[in-house]
Amino acid sequence: MTIERYDTNARYAQLVAYGDTLYIAGQIANDYDGDIRQQTAEALAKIDALLAKGGSGRTKLLMCQVWIRDFADYGGYNEVWEKWLPPGSQPARASVGATLLDPRLRIEIAAIASR
Amino acid sequence: MTIERYDTNARYAQLVAYGDTLYIAGQIANDYDGDIRQQTAEALAKIDALLAKGGSGRTKLLMCQVWIRDFADYGGYNEVWEKWLPPGSQPARASVGATLLDPRLRIEIAAIASR
Amino acid sequence: MTIERYDTNARYAQLVAYGDTLYIAGQIANDYDGDIRQQTAEALAKIDALLAKGGSGRTKLLMCQVWIRDFADYGGYNEVWEKWLPPGSQPARASVGATLLDPRLRIEIAAIASR
Repeated sequence: MTIERYDTNARYAQLVAYGDTLYIAGQIANDYDGDIRQQTAEALAKIDALLAKGGSGRTKLLMCQVWIRDFADYGGYNEVWEKWLPPGSQPARASVGATLLDPRLRIEIAAIASR
Repeated sequence: MTIERYDTNARYAQLVAYGDTLYIAGQIANDYDGDIRQQTAEALAKIDALLAKGGSGRTKLLMCQVWIRDFADYGGYNEVWEKWLPPGSQPARASVGATLLDPRLRIEIAAIASR
Repeated sequence: MTIERYDTNARYAQLVAYGDTLYIAGQIANDYDGDIRQQTAEALAKIDALLAKGGSGRTKLLMCQVWIRDFADYGGYNEVWEKWLPPGSQPARASVGATLLDPRLRIEIAAIASR
């Protein structure tokens, strides 16, 4: 099987597809100054776009890893997350605290999905 | 292939099975006040139960990710881990420090397994 | 399909192969006192060796997770990473800040690859 790589730069691909499994790189907000709801929505919009490029969608998520800067944001992140997630399509998930690329960033989300 | 999702809430599934691969969400202790040995044992007991639901078991772990609050707990966590793991069934593993959902939590464990 | 486990100790395998998917445990430097460039190069050399054991190589990486102690090291790590990565073989990647096994360690890298 060939490996498909999408949206690449010198360091990584935003999406790698191998067979029917998709690997999505850690996604962050466009606007680093947004609050947790805005940053979560922007990261999830990028995941939507990448899933679409790989021939998949929100209903085919298998596992997500979520890093948040501060667990005080956990409620706000989940509020956006729950509205975004179609019923019956919950992935396995782990959410842990971590420092991120820019101190203003509040959330980063990586995913594995099928297609 | 269909995606099987077990033990779901509005946010995630504790277990997602796709083909012969199982994805297990980050597992934490029941008793947040337990010491590292107790918390590790409780998280691993949840993993046992999820592996069983998915038609798998401890001998089929492929990769585990472990987050610990404090590396001072590394020895205690490994003591429980080594007793739990059947000979010849070691997964790939990464253990890193992270803040967790509740400040009393000492360990969280996610896994990928076959079945 | 059988699970192949390479370079095992009581706690984990450095490499687990299942079908055509390889899971590589978190790799760290040999010399904990090296600077970020040296530590990154040493971790990547271990990944090379493990990929080779599993019948794969750098061009078949699917997803990497990178933990760094301090984002001040992000530029140095990427400098070594970009030179190491063959053109057209970028994996999906997530790089987040975390504490590591030893306070001198600056980077840890885990990977999923095909073969």
